[in-house]
Amino acid sequence: MERSVFSECEACQGLPAEEQAVIAALGTEVHFTPGEVLIEEGSRGGSFFILTAGRVEVLKAGQRVAEMGPGAILGEMALFNEDVRTSAVRALEPGALHCIPTAAIHQLVLQEEPAAIHMMETLGRLMVRRLQQRDTDLLQRLGGDDPALVRSMEEFGVLRRRLLSDWALKYHALGKPGKLEIVASKSVGTAADLSVAYSPGVAEPCLAIHAEPDRSYDYTSRGHLVGVITNGTAVLGLGNIGAAAAKPVMEGKAVLFKRFADLDAFDLEIAETDPARFIDIVCALGPTFGGINLEDIRSPECFEIERECSRRMEIPVFHDDQHGTAIIAGAGLLNALELVGKPIEEIRVVFSGAGAAGFTCARYFVTLGVRRENLILTDVRGVVYQGRGDGNYLEELAADTELRTLAEAVRGADVFVGVSAPNILTPDMLRSMSADPIVFALANPTPEIDYRVALQTRRDVLMATGRSDYPNQINNVIAFPYIFRGALDARARSINEPMKLAATHAIAALAREPVTAEAGVEETDLVFGREYLIPKPFDRRLLSRVSGAVAEAATRTGVARLALDPADYRRRLERLAQTM
Amino acid sequence: MERSVFSECEACQGLPAEEQAVIAALGTEVHFTPGEVLIEEGSRGGSFFILTAGRVEVLKAGQRVAEMGPGAILGEMALFNEDVRTSAVRALEPGALHCIPTAAIHQLVLQEEPAAIHMMETLGRLMVRRLQQRDTDLLQRLGGDDPALVRSMEEFGVLRRRLLSDWALKYHALGKPGKLEIVASKSVGTAADLSVAYSPGVAEPCLAIHAEPDRSYDYTSRGHLVGVITNGTAVLGLGNIGAAAAKPVMEGKAVLFKRFADLDAFDLEIAETDPARFIDIVCALGPTFGGINLEDIRSPECFEIERECSRRMEIPVFHDDQHGTAIIAGAGLLNALELVGKPIEEIRVVFSGAGAAGFTCARYFVTLGVRRENLILTDVRGVVYQGRGDGNYLEELAADTELRTLAEAVRGADVFVGVSAPNILTPDMLRSMSADPIVFALANPTPEIDYRVALQTRRDVLMATGRSDYPNQINNVIAFPYIFRGALDARARSINEPMKLAATHAIAALAREPVTAEAGVEETDLVFGREYLIPKPFDRRLLSRVSGAVAEAATRTGVARLALDPADYRRRLERLAQTM
Repeated sequence: MERSVFSECEACQGLPAEEQAVIAALGTEVHFTPGEVLIEEGSRGGSFFILTAGRVEVLKAGQRVAEMGPGAILGEMALFNEDVRTSAVRALEPGALHCIPTAAIHQLVLQEEPAAIHMMETLGRLMVRRLQQRDTDLLQRLGGDDPALVRSMEEFGVLRRRLLSDWALKYHALGKPGKLEIVASKSVGTAADLSVAYSPGVAEPCLAIHAEPDRSYDYTSRGHLVGVITNGTAVLGLGNIGAAAAKPVMEGKAVLFKRFADLDAFDLEIAETDPARFIDIVCALGPTFGGINLEDIRSPECFEIERECSRRMEIPVFHDDQHGTAIIAGAGLLNALELVGKPIEEIRVVFSGAGAAGFTCARYFVTLGVRRENLILTDVRGVVYQGRGDGNYLEELAADTELRTLAEAVRGADVFVGVSAPNILTPDMLRSMSADPIVFALANPTPEIDYRVALQTRRDVLMATGRSDYPNQINNVIAFPYIFRGALDARARSINEPMKLAATHAIAALAREPVTAEAGVEETDLVFGREYLIPKPFDRRLLSRVSGAVAEAATRTGVARLALDPADYRRRLERLAQTM
Repeated sequence: MERSVFSECEACQGLPAEEQAVIAALGTEVHFTPGEVLIEEGSRGGSFFILTAGRVEVLKAGQRVAEMGPGAILGEMALFNEDVRTSAVRALEPGALHCIPTAAIHQLVLQEEPAAIHMMETLGRLMVRRLQQRDTDLLQRLGGDDPALVRSMEEFGVLRRRLLSDWALKYHALGKPGKLEIVASKSVGTAADLSVAYSPGVAEPCLAIHAEPDRSYDYTSRGHLVGVITNGTAVLGLGNIGAAAAKPVMEGKAVLFKRFADLDAFDLEIAETDPARFIDIVCALGPTFGGINLEDIRSPECFEIERECSRRMEIPVFHDDQHGTAIIAGAGLLNALELVGKPIEEIRVVFSGAGAAGFTCARYFVTLGVRRENLILTDVRGVVYQGRGDGNYLEELAADTELRTLAEAVRGADVFVGVSAPNILTPDMLRSMSADPIVFALANPTPEIDYRVALQTRRDVLMATGRSDYPNQINNVIAFPYIFRGALDARARSINEPMKLAATHAIAALAREPVTAEAGVEETDLVFGREYLIPKPFDRRLLSRVSGAVAEAATRTGVARLALDPADYRRRLERLAQTM
């Protein structure tokens, strides 16, 4: 009987039957008659509901915004924040609700009851999806300048941020705190297992590695293990919040390595801001890992840290904040140029932002074929020109120019790349660019120019952002998991420029291909063009294409310890991608 | 049809049906007649067999040693080493074998076929069990001095070591190399999940920790995460083999943390032998972990390293090689003294071996109540006496005595503790000890005095070793997983002496209790006494007893950040133990 509460509830299908029973037992059945108000807008919420019979309507300010039937979940936001009855629910016909008090769920979560933990995860996920949907709906209606709509958009923005923030905290604390778990990959149940996994049998692989160090790839996790290392000096956009506070981001990065490339990654937060001492620590950790992903380290120290660690270590060292964006923006650039028919040697490129990401991306564009003299970097002080007296890494790309401001620099430019701050690129500046301007506005969450504003300003703009809700998202996850996968599988000693270029070309090539079922993405109507310059983050083909290209480049340039057969290796990755 | 090959095979019951089918398809059915020799002793092996019908006998030098029926696996050692047809197999009645070439299995293992990997694991485990069984059988027959038996024991010893060594290497390389995998503990399948696990949602826990550092226990894995850290200077008994070669041991240690206390542990091998620099590195890693288990670091540096790291860090630091043995030997000592009725203040104790384990154990015995003046340490140079001029940590326990050799020191002593070298304690020395002598001979695999020799020498000896095949094994796994579990659950700032003492007393108390079903151990006839002074390593009650006691001591002594309710906490651990 109790099971039937969930039987039509799509959001809860993932919960095992016994967990559904635990949750159902917390609630009570409430019958309703047509016209009855089940949830009042603006009230405080102490329960959520599963609609078990009958249809209801959802009202905002008296206007119907949705209609729902059996299996629907209502009022689930109350689990994350009490002040969230943002709409009313009214019965359309006789029916019944199963009413579950949020306090009962929270109580079970504290007791680490799996059913409650899974229910929270399920409803959190549902809420994120609903907020996303509502955001998209509002955005689509925001075409005109209706002040009421703008206000309701703003109000919704505040509510959304509050709910997501509450959920983000609850998600991290749910069940076992944090996001990583370390498990045995071999059978270790019995004393016989442990006698080879540990003493005495474990001495054999130790001796084999001692005799021949590269055997560590055969006998330890090293070959599939990435160290995600930070000192917490430039975490997300939050600045120097320190090593301890950086841990959630680093665990998240490790999760991405697993999710997208089935690599094992472990995060290290190192309380050491002195670059020389930090370098010594990272280098001493060499025997532990197969590769090092440096993360969220402030510039300019990050340049020296990556360079020195790469030089001293015999494994790949890669500062993702620098190269991740560069590699994907590079792919986007090649595809955009292909579409508009401009040769890379002739384009003029302007960067807004000359930190780790901007500077390295600019440098990488030169490697891709942009002429040094056609490139201008700008930062908060305007154009980085020769003689400005920066006296640091910026000198390398300081321009020999009379231009001094971003507005002056972008006039007639073919490409704008922003890795800086919201709304830096004004509509006027955009208008002053050449025909078919390419604009990569990567500041997050608010780009250097709003996507819709840019398209309203000029219909010939080719636009990419860092956001998932517009076309052409430049998301590092398209590159770093696969670059490491290829480098580690080839047991590479480094990630060199040819390997990065191979990644860029593989990413660019994939976007030009039809989106087949193999890709496994939701959007199946994607066709190479202005709105699809870059593959989607969840495209399953990225694994075999990018990792395959990177491993080949490693072999070709002599940094691979292991020569993989390219066709075999790609097939192996294709199989892996389909099981992930 | 094919499935039936495995249907009576007990060893293969763990393999899923589809994997059994894959393996069965590699082989062919061979029929035999009574008297036919199926395997010749001394031949090379290229296949292994599953007996599908009929009975066979196993012969060694023409003597029947076993009889087997349908479902038996024969010749499986050939998978690990070709030269291992150590016995013959002859048919007793008409029947059939399923014959599987080892090369076919090895081929599939290279292709990472799960069926082949699981088959190798299954047969490796079976082989270890069979070798163990054979060893026990031979040991039991070795009572007399039959030279043929001694020779065959020696030959078997060589074979066993070779096979275990081959298997240990294969086990570590099987499938995904190494023993650890890092997985997401939260749902991360969808873009909605990733938007809280990573950017933008992840900023919330970062900011919360930045504002209040202890929130890292709520929002990151830190609170259940142990760093297993070494510099590879004293690995097992292999010496200074370096950081890279130590990795298999450290991964194994992490596996033990998981297996016995459901803690997540990650191994770090640090290429830094200078103690001061090593200390700096470990201390900088503080924000990453909830506790640090130092491992396989040579003495005397290990003392300074542990002391300094403990002093500088706000999390537990514990050098297991020092304290693990001490805490369990302490429990064994208390129980042995209880049995023989000697007060701890009156006993005379002699240590053989004054390295990290010996020295710290001696010190700990003083904490437990042994009088400083009743304690003598010896090392390769004999008694550590005042004025010997050691000029190092040994001065602290140098004895004010005229005695100079181990033989002189043990005369009349009540307790001998060996953490040194094989066969150091001669039967004559043992005879010279007091009545009911307590002998902890912990050198591995060959103790300071052989268990049987000791009992043959004196029937009143109370004996413990480091070996699993004799009673009273002193195995660190009885202590460290649970000590860390208790310390981490209490969010302790350190592991102090009262916490170690609490562990010792909890371990000692458990051995005095009846072995109930809750213990989950194979040996159910254990009764507190000379042959059962210390709980078995797989006793499930250790988790709640030891961790509970340690967490209580942490709270009592003010080093706990979190005050756990003792009864609640124990119940939680009891539940956890039953699910592991």
